Amino acid sequence: MRIGAIEAGGTKFICGIGNEKGEILERISFPTEAPEKTLEQAAAFFRGQGIEAMGIGSFGPIDLDCSSPSYGCVTTTPKPGWAGFDFVKYMKNFYPVPIGFDTDVNAAVFGEAKWGAAQGMESCVYYTIGTGVGVGVYAEGKLIHGLVHPEGGHVLTRRHPEDSFPGSCPYHGDCLEGMASGPAIERRWGVQGNNLPEDHPAWEMEAYYLAQAISGVILLLSPKKVILGGGVMQQKRLIPLIRKEVAQTLNGYVASRAILNGMDSYIVRPGLGDNAGLCGALALGIDAASI
Amino acid sequence: MRIGAIEAGGTKFICGIGNEKGEILERISFPTEAPEKTLEQAAAFFRGQGIEAMGIGSFGPIDLDCSSPSYGCVTTTPKPGWAGFDFVKYMKNFYPVPIGFDTDVNAAVFGEAKWGAAQGMESCVYYTIGTGVGVGVYAEGKLIHGLVHPEGGHVLTRRHPEDSFPGSCPYHGDCLEGMASGPAIERRWGVQGNNLPEDHPAWEMEAYYLAQAISGVILLLSPKKVILGGGVMQQKRLIPLIRKEVAQTLNGYVASRAILNGMDSYIVRPGLGDNAGLCGALALGIDAASI
Repeated sequence: MRIGAIEAGGTKFICGIGNEKGEILERISFPTEAPEKTLEQAAAFFRGQGIEAMGIGSFGPIDLDCSSPSYGCVTTTPKPGWAGFDFVKYMKNFYPVPIGFDTDVNAAVFGEAKWGAAQGMESCVYYTIGTGVGVGVYAEGKLIHGLVHPEGGHVLTRRHPEDSFPGSCPYHGDCLEGMASGPAIERRWGVQGNNLPEDHPAWEMEAYYLAQAISGVILLLSPKKVILGGGVMQQKRLIPLIRKEVAQTLNGYVASRAILNGMDSYIVRPGLGDNAGLCGALALGIDAASI
Repeated sequence: MRIGAIEAGGTKFICGIGNEKGEILERISFPTEAPEKTLEQAAAFFRGQGIEAMGIGSFGPIDLDCSSPSYGCVTTTPKPGWAGFDFVKYMKNFYPVPIGFDTDVNAAVFGEAKWGAAQGMESCVYYTIGTGVGVGVYAEGKLIHGLVHPEGGHVLTRRHPEDSFPGSCPYHGDCLEGMASGPAIERRWGVQGNNLPEDHPAWEMEAYYLAQAISGVILLLSPKKVILGGGVMQQKRLIPLIRKEVAQTLNGYVASRAILNGMDSYIVRPGLGDNAGLCGALALGIDAASI
């Protein structure tokens, strides 16, 4: 079976063709521009490839309510042409195959649960920390949605005592994304995160905010794995700092061996590396084909 | 079909016999004492009643991992005799029928999803705010567990600017439970919550903490209904204050009509009133019987 996969990011589209084993056989990537232009490029890539299903992990917010007239659309976004654009319908016109559609982070968490760091587990959460902060949630063997989809990057956090940065989120100021995204780091310190040295206090502060949010998710959902991806996580010092801070915050309260004795294999980088999103889109396509 | 239901609270046991419609036909309640003594009373109530299945919503923490040797046990608790006690096995010796077992708050959220304020919805969260703060989570039509069960009462919160109370949680100090439980209110103001007048500043502060945690859950899980029960919620002024504070915190970010225009029917009291826990246990029993 050949399945099409699209990781539709706000700045970059990645398209791939894969199989049921999670293998990506071919791929292409190009900048995200106006929807028709971008999707024509995607369609050209898939043309004549004999794909039997397609999975799309998309930037958002998107409408995932199957009973809604705007199901499959990108809803509100400042990206020219995309607000209200019917992504799924447009692709279905080109390829009348089953199409699985979810957020980019839900796709990533699904990929990780199928073939990555949480393989075979029935719950995990996936954070991407980059231009924004996104959270994908997988629990009881299902991707979680509700009124809309998880937007856990915007939870409020307790301010670090030495931090006077007001926060960069236009909606909430000093929410997690407002304090811990790549742009927040750059605005707070006046320099991009990838130019800050490993021993810069920025990283302890970054770990403080991320660990708070992760601790909250562990308390609320008790996921079997916490996976951290995105550009900001390239700083290698960050993940051990986060593990230490999460352990301190929980303070032994969650009585699970995975947390008390196994933090190094509990909070981890994506098992699929940079392929988590594309493999996740592939998994969405496989899922759509089998329904 | 006649189903047994047990709402096993830390201070009070409620046992009932009900049917598939969620009707409670008979009930009894008694104080929670040593496990054998308490469960013998429960067993005496169910004896000869022809029950075909049983559901138990229990105080915790409890082991819900079916593959664990201690499945069905209360794990750690200061309550004499209960730590490590095998609740499910003990009841199964009396009644070798299918037994559904979950936390008291997961039972309550299940009852509310089946017959209460979230009837027919595939997601909702249930908070109980009383001696402690507990959270039950239902998403994608399933009760959520993971490593252990939700313990969302212990999430960290941002401190109210006028609050100098250090918090009452022995694990986390000023986590949600440490700041907003009944005992926290009593210790902060020197008087029990039910003796504080409606216009006391305690209620704005209480709403501030609860709204923060609820906003976090809305962002993370996007539940279709938020249900607030427990003794502290008896103060009628609290729920409108919480709705207002949640709307302010989210600041229009979650673009759902239920939140933007329907807050009064989105954050609500339990549809089953004080029966949420017992009806939920009944629902667990029905579920166990049908597996």
